[in-house]
Amino acid sequence: MPSYNPPLRDMQFLLHEVFQVTNEFKAMPRHAEVDADTINAVLEEAGKFAVNVTFPLNISGDEEGCTLDKTTHAVTTPKGFKQAYAQFVEGGWAALSCDPAYGGQGLPFVVNQCLYEMLNSANQAWTMYPGLSHGAYEALHAYGTDAQKQLYLPKLTSGEWTGSMCLTESHCGTDLGLLRTKAEPLPDGSYKLTGNKIFISAGEHDFTSNIVHLVLARLPDAPVGSKGISLFVVPKFLVNADGSLGERNPIFCGGLEHKMGIHGNATAQLNLDGAVGTLVGQPNKGLAAMFVMMNAARLGVGNQSLGLTEVAFQNALAYAKDRLQMRSLSGTKAKDKPADPIIVHPDVRRMLLTAKAYAEGGRALSTFCSVLIDKELHHPDEKVRQNSAELVALLTPIVKAFLTDNGWTATTMSQQVYGGHGFIKEWGMEQFVRDARINMIYEGTNGIQALDLLGRKVLGNQGASLKKFGKLVGQLVEEEGVNEKMAEFINPIAMLGEQMTKFTTEIGFKGMQNPDEVGAASVDYLRVAGHLVFGYLFARMAQVALREIAAGNADPFYLAKLQTARFYFAKLFPETATLMRTARAGSRVLMDSDAALA
Amino acid sequence: MPSYNPPLRDMQFLLHEVFQVTNEFKAMPRHAEVDADTINAVLEEAGKFAVNVTFPLNISGDEEGCTLDKTTHAVTTPKGFKQAYAQFVEGGWAALSCDPAYGGQGLPFVVNQCLYEMLNSANQAWTMYPGLSHGAYEALHAYGTDAQKQLYLPKLTSGEWTGSMCLTESHCGTDLGLLRTKAEPLPDGSYKLTGNKIFISAGEHDFTSNIVHLVLARLPDAPVGSKGISLFVVPKFLVNADGSLGERNPIFCGGLEHKMGIHGNATAQLNLDGAVGTLVGQPNKGLAAMFVMMNAARLGVGNQSLGLTEVAFQNALAYAKDRLQMRSLSGTKAKDKPADPIIVHPDVRRMLLTAKAYAEGGRALSTFCSVLIDKELHHPDEKVRQNSAELVALLTPIVKAFLTDNGWTATTMSQQVYGGHGFIKEWGMEQFVRDARINMIYEGTNGIQALDLLGRKVLGNQGASLKKFGKLVGQLVEEEGVNEKMAEFINPIAMLGEQMTKFTTEIGFKGMQNPDEVGAASVDYLRVAGHLVFGYLFARMAQVALREIAAGNADPFYLAKLQTARFYFAKLFPETATLMRTARAGSRVLMDSDAALA
Repeated sequence: MPSYNPPLRDMQFLLHEVFQVTNEFKAMPRHAEVDADTINAVLEEAGKFAVNVTFPLNISGDEEGCTLDKTTHAVTTPKGFKQAYAQFVEGGWAALSCDPAYGGQGLPFVVNQCLYEMLNSANQAWTMYPGLSHGAYEALHAYGTDAQKQLYLPKLTSGEWTGSMCLTESHCGTDLGLLRTKAEPLPDGSYKLTGNKIFISAGEHDFTSNIVHLVLARLPDAPVGSKGISLFVVPKFLVNADGSLGERNPIFCGGLEHKMGIHGNATAQLNLDGAVGTLVGQPNKGLAAMFVMMNAARLGVGNQSLGLTEVAFQNALAYAKDRLQMRSLSGTKAKDKPADPIIVHPDVRRMLLTAKAYAEGGRALSTFCSVLIDKELHHPDEKVRQNSAELVALLTPIVKAFLTDNGWTATTMSQQVYGGHGFIKEWGMEQFVRDARINMIYEGTNGIQALDLLGRKVLGNQGASLKKFGKLVGQLVEEEGVNEKMAEFINPIAMLGEQMTKFTTEIGFKGMQNPDEVGAASVDYLRVAGHLVFGYLFARMAQVALREIAAGNADPFYLAKLQTARFYFAKLFPETATLMRTARAGSRVLMDSDAALA
Repeated sequence: MPSYNPPLRDMQFLLHEVFQVTNEFKAMPRHAEVDADTINAVLEEAGKFAVNVTFPLNISGDEEGCTLDKTTHAVTTPKGFKQAYAQFVEGGWAALSCDPAYGGQGLPFVVNQCLYEMLNSANQAWTMYPGLSHGAYEALHAYGTDAQKQLYLPKLTSGEWTGSMCLTESHCGTDLGLLRTKAEPLPDGSYKLTGNKIFISAGEHDFTSNIVHLVLARLPDAPVGSKGISLFVVPKFLVNADGSLGERNPIFCGGLEHKMGIHGNATAQLNLDGAVGTLVGQPNKGLAAMFVMMNAARLGVGNQSLGLTEVAFQNALAYAKDRLQMRSLSGTKAKDKPADPIIVHPDVRRMLLTAKAYAEGGRALSTFCSVLIDKELHHPDEKVRQNSAELVALLTPIVKAFLTDNGWTATTMSQQVYGGHGFIKEWGMEQFVRDARINMIYEGTNGIQALDLLGRKVLGNQGASLKKFGKLVGQLVEEEGVNEKMAEFINPIAMLGEQMTKFTTEIGFKGMQNPDEVGAASVDYLRVAGHLVFGYLFARMAQVALREIAAGNADPFYLAKLQTARFYFAKLFPETATLMRTARAGSRVLMDSDAALA
């Protein structure tokens, strides 16, 4: 059975030492009073919840899965899941970073992200039930009418109800412009929805008395394609004006998917058979509202793989210290034992350090991005808000795709450390791999993220956002360029930053002549960008660690951080050499392949 | 539901056009009469068997798994598995490349490898039952006494019985020197074995009346460690001198593992409770005999991932042509449809071509290596046999590790092409990924393969074997160095060959001072070596394709081959740039990480 220790020390390091969040919060009226002790206490309790309540249900939830009663359309979640959710709501965790206007605790978004990292380490399938609510909450908070807000937000905030995102249909996932679910106006201003949705995570369950579905559908006079999509709120049970539950709305679960992983989460087929809903936002402008949910969800998905990377690493490390097998190539290390622990082998360390570096780099990026979101939402200076929003938009596809691709590598390597035992269910490692797999797919495949990054976020504004990030890199290079001890961390990012600027211009020109050049380079480009961001963040972490060590701080945490950063730059970052080359290979080698792909 | 078409055309291309196997066979008395028509006819029938008999049982076998009756110790395999095996035996497939002296058909090993590629595409879990027999057959054929051969080989050849390899114990896998199973001599010259084995693939089943277990154990006076291991043949039912079955031998299945994949194969815990066996080969020299099985098994494991790569690619390609989603970036392609098929997108093509290139490169390597094995076994010239054996030894860890790591990438990318549907069991893609995972682990983890390659096969003989392979590369470079059309294929391998020679010397020197340098570089080194081999083989395939096109051959197969080769050199081969760099990073960054891995 795997174990899990919340990485509180690393979170505190990032929050307080690297990003100094309370200094940032001081500028924001909403968060000015949030101090480090409060944050640390909240995270410590959050860690306890993850370890004690949801982590013990991870393997059993995977084995048991969800079941659908086809007569009543009721879904039963694995044993203990419902009770764990009740504890979650009772503990106030659902409301942690929600708006106090609707009963939320109003803590910064970054604190909520740390909570969710731990929940994802403990049990991704379970965490998706409350996790999906946040997307629905965000969309209603941003686009709902006052009446909708009053009706739904307090109960989504408390967790008394959960939310879902109903986008995909069997013939359309990426291309929502093709969707067919119809919404017909009713005399009272509401709408009657008919259609079939699939792949609805947490789309039906037994946790709560109601589920608030946010559904994309098409009005009768809607233009063809993605400009004709509208967003509706469609509760499982209709809600009376006083908040009490009315009739069952005909949005029924018609089936549950049998999946590779996240068995504990109900992935529902939902049939809308004249279900009644109300419009959220403007008619035919549903995609904009949807993207509010979607962007939140994409950051959430990156966070899922971060959680899995951390827990897989922790267990692989423990196993590598415990498992005796062979002697060290450089001479016996454990003379009193029949063999050395496998952690003496360089390649076992390579696998462990890869997972560790991806966990720590991922946590740094998730934290960095979350603080930017707090600034985007609550900084009093419009320019800071704008600037932060732009960086968040740039980083979102990187968080989603880079962290989930890395999570796949990290969970697979952590499993590999176990040898044959890694393939056996009882050890729990293979589940981390299976669960991690979906994160590369849903909420926009990683290929779509790459197009979003290169096509929209970089070339779409002539590299302006990328330059904003480049400025941060430039500042750090300037600050530390003469510090010899920082050279090993600074030189690589300074060089890559220059190469990327050049390459981005190049691809921009090529793309104007042939847009397929953008598609051909995009996935490699995203990984290069990911390494630029990770490189920048590892350099900042190393900067703090070096300062502390120079000041005589004997906490081994700082030396550990330096070692991980060194490993990252020596063994993972150099991938960019190949990626720049393959990204430059151009589209012809892909597109002139009709015979090969006949 | 997935589909499968045996890649007969590509097999024929490799066998007859690239490697011209019948020319090679003419030199070997055993195979002198084997002609192309015979081979093609056999492979066509083999393909039909795979498609019609075992492929339809792949998903159902995964869902159903194997069950153990704890009272009788009997294992029931999934529905249809036993009947399929009966058809396999009846068709003579078990005997295909076995020695005619024991009833085998005596066809070349390379034909058997092609059969097994197709069986692995169709159903890896099922294929392991007959597949494991080959290892037992090889060990007995090489090291058995005449009596043992007469007793066991005819029935392993016909398939009336199957074999197993009983190596692993719960505390030792890689490090067999630690094993504890005891073998005590009995007065009649046989031995009584006591101990517990785990992870025994096809270790118990309901296919056959007997199972021939080859078991590693320790004699009472055995030296400590791997020099004290002996090999025994321990049948499930004792065999009388006339070949009839005697008493049940107390080697009982005590449990079946619950695994990530290959659910249809019984992975047995076997308890030996005074089971009677006879010694195979010399006392305390069991490891040498075991390696005969193991090397066969390692090539077999590479072949498993080759099979999965091919079938995953085929289905992803079909899906990419069928699935409509979004428009091409460079303008609408399917005007009559609501969206373009996703194969118009460059990155979808990148994923497809990656899988295709890994399938075709893998098939080329598997075929190349198998022909060498035929030469090693049956060539009349001792020097040719010796030379072939050396190349096989060099290539074995590459076949095992490079093909299985590539298979992981290829099946994952093929799954990714399906988007969300790839995560759903019904589509069959996620099973290919789960099944492929074990191939990187068993029969020596891929990390162990890398140590075997760099430590033993390359540095162990001062690079002599590598130079032998380098000569082949050099010949091709010389042959085609002035052919402008071949430059794109020849230049990269010429350059990499030089770099590798230099790097190998470098690591040899570093390794003499500190053996951990070898362990630190080994995994990267193996991938570089894999690309040198793939590059050489793609260049040879391109050479044939260019010749045929120049000669006016209009078969689109040749253009397809060129396109795949171009993709390979443009998008996959350049990985070597990073790998050379990270391999050179040295051991310090790994070994000086005690704080990070505390």
